[in-house]
Amino acid sequence: MTDIKVARLRSTDGPDGIDIAMESVPSPGPGEVALSMAALGLNRAEAMFARGEYIVAPSLPSRLGIEGVGVVREIGAGVEGIEVGQRLAVASAADVSGTGLLGEVVTVPASMLLPDLPTLSDVELAAFWIAFITAYGGLVQQGGLAAGESVLVSAASSSVGLAAIQVAKVLGARVVATTRTSAKVDRLLQAGADRVVVTDVESLDDLGEPLDLVFDAVGAPILDASVAHLRAGGRFVIYGVLSGERTASFPLIPAVIHNLRMTAFHAGFHVLADSDRRHRAIDWLTTGVNAGHLSPTVHRVFALDQLADAYRHLEGSTQVGKIVVRVGGQRPIP
Amino acid sequence: MTDIKVARLRSTDGPDGIDIAMESVPSPGPGEVALSMAALGLNRAEAMFARGEYIVAPSLPSRLGIEGVGVVREIGAGVEGIEVGQRLAVASAADVSGTGLLGEVVTVPASMLLPDLPTLSDVELAAFWIAFITAYGGLVQQGGLAAGESVLVSAASSSVGLAAIQVAKVLGARVVATTRTSAKVDRLLQAGADRVVVTDVESLDDLGEPLDLVFDAVGAPILDASVAHLRAGGRFVIYGVLSGERTASFPLIPAVIHNLRMTAFHAGFHVLADSDRRHRAIDWLTTGVNAGHLSPTVHRVFALDQLADAYRHLEGSTQVGKIVVRVGGQRPIP
Repeated sequence: MTDIKVARLRSTDGPDGIDIAMESVPSPGPGEVALSMAALGLNRAEAMFARGEYIVAPSLPSRLGIEGVGVVREIGAGVEGIEVGQRLAVASAADVSGTGLLGEVVTVPASMLLPDLPTLSDVELAAFWIAFITAYGGLVQQGGLAAGESVLVSAASSSVGLAAIQVAKVLGARVVATTRTSAKVDRLLQAGADRVVVTDVESLDDLGEPLDLVFDAVGAPILDASVAHLRAGGRFVIYGVLSGERTASFPLIPAVIHNLRMTAFHAGFHVLADSDRRHRAIDWLTTGVNAGHLSPTVHRVFALDQLADAYRHLEGSTQVGKIVVRVGGQRPIP
Repeated sequence: MTDIKVARLRSTDGPDGIDIAMESVPSPGPGEVALSMAALGLNRAEAMFARGEYIVAPSLPSRLGIEGVGVVREIGAGVEGIEVGQRLAVASAADVSGTGLLGEVVTVPASMLLPDLPTLSDVELAAFWIAFITAYGGLVQQGGLAAGESVLVSAASSSVGLAAIQVAKVLGARVVATTRTSAKVDRLLQAGADRVVVTDVESLDDLGEPLDLVFDAVGAPILDASVAHLRAGGRFVIYGVLSGERTASFPLIPAVIHNLRMTAFHAGFHVLADSDRRHRAIDWLTTGVNAGHLSPTVHRVFALDQLADAYRHLEGSTQVGKIVVRVGGQRPIP
C-alpha cells in the first residue's frame, strides 16, 4: 500500500520546522469525508502558528493547513448529500493541529466542507473561501458596512485585503486602502480601491476624509492613526496583528463622543462556527462569484514539496494576493 | 426687579471654583421654555467638568448642572404641548457651559425636557432620569443585556450603579456588583445585587463565574480583570473613567476567541440626542416606575447656597445614590 505525503510541523521554527512525512492513506470515520486534495491556500495564520505565535498553539508534531480544495474519495457513515468524485472546498479554522489540511489525502468532519464554485479553477477555489469569508464576515456581519459608507482596509494587498476591496465595492462603499510601500499602489487601484495611502510615505494623520469602518490586520499603527477620522458610529474590526501587538488601545474620549465600537474578528470562530452567519456569508459570496463581481487573486503557485519555501515567500510579504500549493495531479493515489 | 441665584464656575478648581451669582430673570426665546427649578441632581460628570477633566471643557465663567426638575414658568414661541405651571424634568448632557441648569430660573430648549413621573417627589425626580437613562441605555441599548445573562456593575453604589442593578433585575439578568470597601455591601444586596465583590479585599481575577456584560465606570482595573470571565459574545460598555485613565486596553486574543466588543457610552450623546433611543428608553423606564420596579436612591439633599459643599461631598465618594440640591420653595421669584 502506497503512502501519501503529509506536511508536518516538527518545531516552532516557522518554515524551517516544516517537512513532508509519508503516512498511510487515512480512512474517514463516522461523520467524516476523505478528500484527495488538489490545491491548498496558505494563510498568515498558519505561518504564525508555525512560529508558535498564533492564538492556538501547535501540539508538536502538528499538522498544518487550514484551507483547500479536493475531490471526495471516501465517505464515512452518516454523511449525506455528498458523492464520491465531487469537488469541494474545505476550511479548518480552529483545531489546526488535529485537522491540518496540507497532505495528499485528508479526512475531515463534513462540517468543515464548503461549496464548490464551478467557475473557479482548483487553484482559484483554494484561494477563495477564507479570504472572502473574512472580508464579508468582518466588513458586513461584524462591521455593519453599508452602501455610501467609507472603509479603511489596511494591509490591502493581502488576499483578505483584496477580497475586502471587492466586497466593499459590491456593497457600494468607498475604499481607502493602505499599503506600506509604493510598489503595490497600481495593483490596489486596479483591484478597485478608491484611494491608496502608502504608509511609509503618507501619514494617516493627514488622511483628510472621514471613515465609518476600519478593517485592520496591522494593529496599533493603523488603529491609533485612524481613530481621529472616524465618523459618529464608527467601528474598528481587527482581524490581525501584523504589528505584533496583542492589545489595541481603545481611546475613551473619542469613543464616547462618536459612539465608537471595537471588535476583534476571526472567520473561523465568528462565521464558520456560526451556522446562521456561515450560511448567509456563503450565499452572498456565491452570488457575487456567479455574477462575476468577486474573484480571488492568486499570487504564485508552489508544489507540496516546496512547502517550506512557499511559507518563506509568504513571510517575505512581497505578494499581492494568495500563495497556493498544488497537491494532486502528480501521481495516482491508490 | 428681583434677581435670581445662578451657579457659576469661575475657575477649574472644582468646588472651590464654584459660587452663586445674582442674575436677572431670563426669558425664553423661540423654541425655549423657562422653568422655575425645584431640585437638581448632581452628577460626577459636572464634578469632573468643574475640574477641567470632563470630555467637554468649560468656557469660563461657565454655567453648571445637567439635570433637574422645575415648573414651567414661561413658554417661548413655537413650543407646543406644554402648559405654564406643569412640572417637568430636564436634562442637558452636552453643552454644559451654555445650558447649565443650576439656578433658580433657567431657560432651556424644549428638546431638553423630559416627562414628569407623578409618583416621584421633586427630589426623587431630580435623581431619576440621567441615572436610569444611563443604566438602561448602557445595559440594553448599547450592551444588549438579555434575560438570563450576567452583568458586572462596577462602582455600584453610584446613582447609575444602583439604577443598573434595578434595570438588570427587571430584565431577568444576574448582577455582580463591585464596590471598593465593605461599607456598602449590605446596601447593594438590599438594592438587588445577586453578589457583591469588594475590590479592596477580593480580586476580580478570582471571580469564579462567567459574565456576559461589563458595565463599567472605573476603567483599566475593572476591564483588565474582568476580560478573562467574559463568555462568548461578551461586551464591555464603558461609561466612566473613575480610575483617571483615558484609554482602555482591548485584549485581542480573548477578543478574537470570544468575539468580544468594547464600546464607550454616554447617555447624552447616545440616548438623549437620538430620538428613537430616547423615546424607547423613556417608555421603558416610565413603565418601570409606574409598575413600582424602579425608584431612584437619594443620598442627601443640599440647599443651592451649599452647592460647593454638595460637590465636595460627591467627590468624597462616600454616598450611596444621588446627591440632590433643592432650589425652589425658599422665596417667591417675581
